Amino acid sequence: MTPAAERRSIPRLPDDYSEDAVSARRDFLSSVTGIRPARMCQSSLDPRCAAGNVENFIGAAQVPVGVAGPLLVHGEHARGEFYVPLATTEGTLVASYNRGMRFAYEAGGVTVSVVADRMQRAPVFGFDSAAQARTFGQWVSARLGAIRAVAESTTRTGKLLDIEQFSVSRYLFLRFNFTTGDAAGQNMTSRATSRACEWIRDRYPGIRYFCLESNMATDKKSSQLNVLATRGKRVVAELTIPRQIVPQTLRATPEQMIAARQVANLGGMLAGVNNNGNHSANGIAALFLATGQDVANVAESSAALVHAEILADGSYYYSITIPALIVATYGGGTGLPTQRECLELLGCYGSGKVLKFAEIAAATALCGELSLGSAIVTEEWVDAHERLGRNRP
Amino acid sequence: MTPAAERRSIPRLPDDYSEDAVSARRDFLSSVTGIRPARMCQSSLDPRCAAGNVENFIGAAQVPVGVAGPLLVHGEHARGEFYVPLATTEGTLVASYNRGMRFAYEAGGVTVSVVADRMQRAPVFGFDSAAQARTFGQWVSARLGAIRAVAESTTRTGKLLDIEQFSVSRYLFLRFNFTTGDAAGQNMTSRATSRACEWIRDRYPGIRYFCLESNMATDKKSSQLNVLATRGKRVVAELTIPRQIVPQTLRATPEQMIAARQVANLGGMLAGVNNNGNHSANGIAALFLATGQDVANVAESSAALVHAEILADGSYYYSITIPALIVATYGGGTGLPTQRECLELLGCYGSGKVLKFAEIAAATALCGELSLGSAIVTEEWVDAHERLGRNRP
Amino acid sequence: MTPAAERRSIPRLPDDYSEDAVSARRDFLSSVTGIRPARMCQSSLDPRCAAGNVENFIGAAQVPVGVAGPLLVHGEHARGEFYVPLATTEGTLVASYNRGMRFAYEAGGVTVSVVADRMQRAPVFGFDSAAQARTFGQWVSARLGAIRAVAESTTRTGKLLDIEQFSVSRYLFLRFNFTTGDAAGQNMTSRATSRACEWIRDRYPGIRYFCLESNMATDKKSSQLNVLATRGKRVVAELTIPRQIVPQTLRATPEQMIAARQVANLGGMLAGVNNNGNHSANGIAALFLATGQDVANVAESSAALVHAEILADGSYYYSITIPALIVATYGGGTGLPTQRECLELLGCYGSGKVLKFAEIAAATALCGELSLGSAIVTEEWVDAHERLGRNRP
Amino acid sequence: MTPAAERRSIPRLPDDYSEDAVSARRDFLSSVTGIRPARMCQSSLDPRCAAGNVENFIGAAQVPVGVAGPLLVHGEHARGEFYVPLATTEGTLVASYNRGMRFAYEAGGVTVSVVADRMQRAPVFGFDSAAQARTFGQWVSARLGAIRAVAESTTRTGKLLDIEQFSVSRYLFLRFNFTTGDAAGQNMTSRATSRACEWIRDRYPGIRYFCLESNMATDKKSSQLNVLATRGKRVVAELTIPRQIVPQTLRATPEQMIAARQVANLGGMLAGVNNNGNHSANGIAALFLATGQDVANVAESSAALVHAEILADGSYYYSITIPALIVATYGGGTGLPTQRECLELLGCYGSGKVLKFAEIAAATALCGELSLGSAIVTEEWVDAHERLGRNRP
Repeated sequence: MTPAAERRSIPRLPDDYSEDAVSARRDFLSSVTGIRPARMCQSSLDPRCAAGNVENFIGAAQVPVGVAGPLLVHGEHARGEFYVPLATTEGTLVASYNRGMRFAYEAGGVTVSVVADRMQRAPVFGFDSAAQARTFGQWVSARLGAIRAVAESTTRTGKLLDIEQFSVSRYLFLRFNFTTGDAAGQNMTSRATSRACEWIRDRYPGIRYFCLESNMATDKKSSQLNVLATRGKRVVAELTIPRQIVPQTLRATPEQMIAARQVANLGGMLAGVNNNGNHSANGIAALFLATGQDVANVAESSAALVHAEILADGSYYYSITIPALIVATYGGGTGLPTQRECLELLGCYGSGKVLKFAEIAAATALCGELSLGSAIVTEEWVDAHERLGRNRP
Repeated sequence: MTPAAERRSIPRLPDDYSEDAVSARRDFLSSVTGIRPARMCQSSLDPRCAAGNVENFIGAAQVPVGVAGPLLVHGEHARGEFYVPLATTEGTLVASYNRGMRFAYEAGGVTVSVVADRMQRAPVFGFDSAAQARTFGQWVSARLGAIRAVAESTTRTGKLLDIEQFSVSRYLFLRFNFTTGDAAGQNMTSRATSRACEWIRDRYPGIRYFCLESNMATDKKSSQLNVLATRGKRVVAELTIPRQIVPQTLRATPEQMIAARQVANLGGMLAGVNNNGNHSANGIAALFLATGQDVANVAESSAALVHAEILADGSYYYSITIPALIVATYGGGTGLPTQRECLELLGCYGSGKVLKFAEIAAATALCGELSLGSAIVTEEWVDAHERLGRNRP
Repeated sequence: MTPAAERRSIPRLPDDYSEDAVSARRDFLSSVTGIRPARMCQSSLDPRCAAGNVENFIGAAQVPVGVAGPLLVHGEHARGEFYVPLATTEGTLVASYNRGMRFAYEAGGVTVSVVADRMQRAPVFGFDSAAQARTFGQWVSARLGAIRAVAESTTRTGKLLDIEQFSVSRYLFLRFNFTTGDAAGQNMTSRATSRACEWIRDRYPGIRYFCLESNMATDKKSSQLNVLATRGKRVVAELTIPRQIVPQTLRATPEQMIAARQVANLGGMLAGVNNNGNHSANGIAALFLATGQDVANVAESSAALVHAEILADGSYYYSITIPALIVATYGGGTGLPTQRECLELLGCYGSGKVLKFAEIAAATALCGELSLGSAIVTEEWVDAHERLGRNRP
Repeated sequence: MTPAAERRSIPRLPDDYSEDAVSARRDFLSSVTGIRPARMCQSSLDPRCAAGNVENFIGAAQVPVGVAGPLLVHGEHARGEFYVPLATTEGTLVASYNRGMRFAYEAGGVTVSVVADRMQRAPVFGFDSAAQARTFGQWVSARLGAIRAVAESTTRTGKLLDIEQFSVSRYLFLRFNFTTGDAAGQNMTSRATSRACEWIRDRYPGIRYFCLESNMATDKKSSQLNVLATRGKRVVAELTIPRQIVPQTLRATPEQMIAARQVANLGGMLAGVNNNGNHSANGIAALFLATGQDVANVAESSAALVHAEILADGSYYYSITIPALIVATYGGGTGLPTQRECLELLGCYGSGKVLKFAEIAAATALCGELSLGSAIVTEEWVDAHERLGRNRP
């Protein structure tokens, strides 16, 4: 393609989620690219459903879903057996998670706890001097109640937990921490923080610079701050494999597993990773995709801290802490047809379900770690990929 | 759900991608969960297509696709105007990228270069002492040619560039760097490295510990090492907005944009981010999902380094460097029906297209940065989300 | 030297800071190494003075001290002109800081503010599950008052500000934040936290693991956590160089300085530095050494965030934020003869002086940044080292 | 002090290291501060000695030196028993290192290896586009031989190993890696790189921006890059404590030590530390200070990776890897009187000794880790500080 004489905009109609609007765009694409995207149209996704989720709608991406399970979970919200839908195009992934879920089942199931829950927006305020920025911070601290009231007036479910302060130069960075109910809450948090900042700016003189987002949120990024201070849900999944069944499950001794873990820690510290485990982003991305989560949040949710121990009786304790799991069972893509089905398969659609879903997600991640972790130690890993993936190139 | 008396495995049939196998699983899910996933079945995705991409197939996740463009690209492989399919459930995303593409068009288009290309597997070898590990490193260096021959014997397209060495304690971590043609190449790289390590282990006595992956790859993780040393494609997208059109495009002065950029850098340094920009993971995840990339690689591909300058004539230079863009136009999910269509819309399906695709991806990411970057500075951002997203909660 | 038949311990006497004890050790060293350390003995340092500061005393390391100044400071505690003693063996260092102090003087002086002040000890508690760790965290939060009383009972000056909580796996990491008066406070903090933990352990059943220090303090290390959350003093030094005098001071335009700063930020983000400035550790180490600070704290105190801007009138604003400046004017080495003299030269010896000293330290660091920063931009830097340092090799 | 009517410069004389010059400065300080630094003058340090090491000399900082040992080292350069001079003002430090050296002696001594050796300067070159920066990188790679010849022409001992390349935006960052003989080599490296860059800039057209240092060196800073790629010496010290003597040395079981290590790793990963060990900066700073090293390099040299294992026979293997140990036995402060004496005590003064010295430094660091590590586990640590340090506040 070469640049056209003039810019050919994508057609938009007043009723932009009508069949006509969609057809107009498909015709346009055919005319400018020579490609008519036919398969994308053959889906159960009515264009009307896409309103609020996408603009310039042209069809549906269709990603194969496999199911893994049963996943036996002893959560505080998720209790029992679950069959977990995973949308992926990567051969072996579902088989590997399924294998890990079998190990976990045999070991008695995965215990899970959500240990923290908060979503952020992080505005920054600039002043004439660092001293002024410090004074402003004291002013903010003294008005937390009023600021909370303003922020919470914009939302039915969001609650402002606290406002962290970080100072550099003559700037004060504020990190507003909210709970956001069953929504992931980025938009709710933006709106509430925006309103709170308007309130502040109306009242506090001498603000020389303001920006609603300072890069400290840290939305759609991985960060040490998220690992430390949580973004979304902080979830810990734990499992103890009794000594006697370790050989049949992991096919390696706990000592071998721990030795590999320690070396992996060294490698991770060298590389400066956001995750000292194996591949939790795989299961998380597949679950996110199946259930209408925002897959861009894999940036944050790929972070993990894995920790294993050999207990006094020789059993193998294994845990994964996901410090920034961004999940929702309401809003975003959760209400779209197949996405909702997948949430329903887990008993997680709608309000009051997000902690249950977070627990299932973390338990799933743990099973994937177990499976790949043991496959790496026993050197079965590459063979499995040869067998199950096409590995064409 | 409560744990069953005995573990109820998901049904598998000898011909596991047959309609029968899929039906058996759906029936099973209905019986154990009470939910029949009907919408997932209404898709253009034939179960047979899913072989090699997923196990325990039960249907297709359907994600709305919007299109943004025209994106005017001056790449070395991608040249001209492109209409970019983005699969997402997040309202505003496509509109925001579309807006950025308009800015970029008006500014004369995005220049893009792939500046490095490599995919890794990172085994680790343990010895009785650090001195022995160092000696082993010298042995490896002296046999790079032979090791390369062994590694490359396992693949038609993969080429071993070099082997980096990192030492800690009595371990030597090797990072095998390959080019992998049009495939993302993780499996190819695993296989080739595995074979190379077998060759090494057959010949080198005294290896006390071996693991094919040491966490230094760093697959499905974000890491400083990836930012430094590239994983997948390292791509730079650049744009210069002429001074006179900056106000009508960004609605802010270059000086305002730079000031916000500097403060965002401070926020990012404080938080320890893998990305000093705004939200490149959004566009990358949506493009990955539409085109059959592995969305778990958003973990790596979310990293970015944004850099802007005011030129001598007052124009605004903006660039984004994506150090670990993991993309493919062959293998993985790229051949699935809707995914292939989306690649074809970009003229990027199949062999010889991966660098073109990488350039389009980076140009897309840049446009999203422009759009959100200016919306944050001009404080239009939250309003746009109010208007276009449902923001239900 | 080869290992002796038996281990030859260093002589110790009951009165181990007596001349006899010191002589016994010197004689011993002569006999085992053939070297008699004579110069080390020729000092103003009476062995008796060294009690509490060193064990196995044998003499004094003598490091040349140069003086730089006047440093014009507009602090909240340090106000006026100071002549700053810097102990170093690195030629050019004092000259460079002196040059920067001249720049700063001509620009009207350095404004400094201590924006946070806290010292940490970070114990960790382990439980049978993550849920138990979370419950423990709630218990601790509810007893902050009682814990504070116990902790503060061990010290006259230390005050417990708060206890931060961080969770991973089934562990809860607590970070006790204290103010510590004029002492650096590591020992005070250890003692107070130790007592508080005893109190906790006596009362809370089910603690499976305890360690008084978890690596989250993070003492004698650099860490992102220190950058975010302060260790010791968080100090911001600021300077505005009026437009008209920038050329004669920096010999570069503000635009050139900013351009270099932005590129240095990119380099720093790539490298993963704890400091995006030039060399603040140089001035800090030299001042620490001269004034009896713990030079090992250069590990923490080397961190810095530098930020510069061009103001509306074209003036050049420059700032350095030191997030973990560990300083004392009481305790440690501050009372030793030459160290005390150096503190006295700054009017900073003894109680009530630590914030003043912190301000002078940060102002000093800023001047060094200005000087080297401009020398790098104007390419005078290497020549200066050729001229002033011996550069023998 | 209040600002004077006019700036009162510190006196300098043509013969600035004469007694007259020093007296003039002391008189000046007395007049402006009211303090006469008398103790600083009572030293064995002749002002003449300070030329090349300091400017504006006024006297000598005198820091108590204690000695620890015997340290039994099995290095490749350091072999036998050493008595290690440590200059510090922190009570307990020498006692703790001495205790660790006893443990190590009883365990059979410390094995040490220098596994890499390089010193850097990292210039950056800017171009009109990323593609041009990439082309420049190819040009540089093709001329490594010529560039090396130019760089090495400036030094007798420096050797250019290689030039690493890192690209961001339209900049190419080069990291020149040198070996620098017995000097730390920062100045040598600056000079050689400066000359090489002149050569490059004379020959390569289109360089739009140049800076000799880009923040990627990373001098006087801690960085992930140093941890990965070495700055100065990369040294590994190792020790195996036979099972039967573990209880009497560490007073804890290997299993307890490993458990504490794993939790410390978690804490370190959370905090984002440059060192997962205990306090190696303590021993390194004290040894640096005693022996005339540049104590500002504690910024880099504080980084460490600690790794421990339980061997098959139950013995306890412990190692510390110091990735950026910046040391010299020639140049800098090594030739000053007491500094030289301390190097001589170790048999490390002068040429051909730097690797020996690096080995002793790393072995020392290991002993400090052993001692504090076991004291933390056995909870003896705070008590030791109470007893040996004054802990006045």
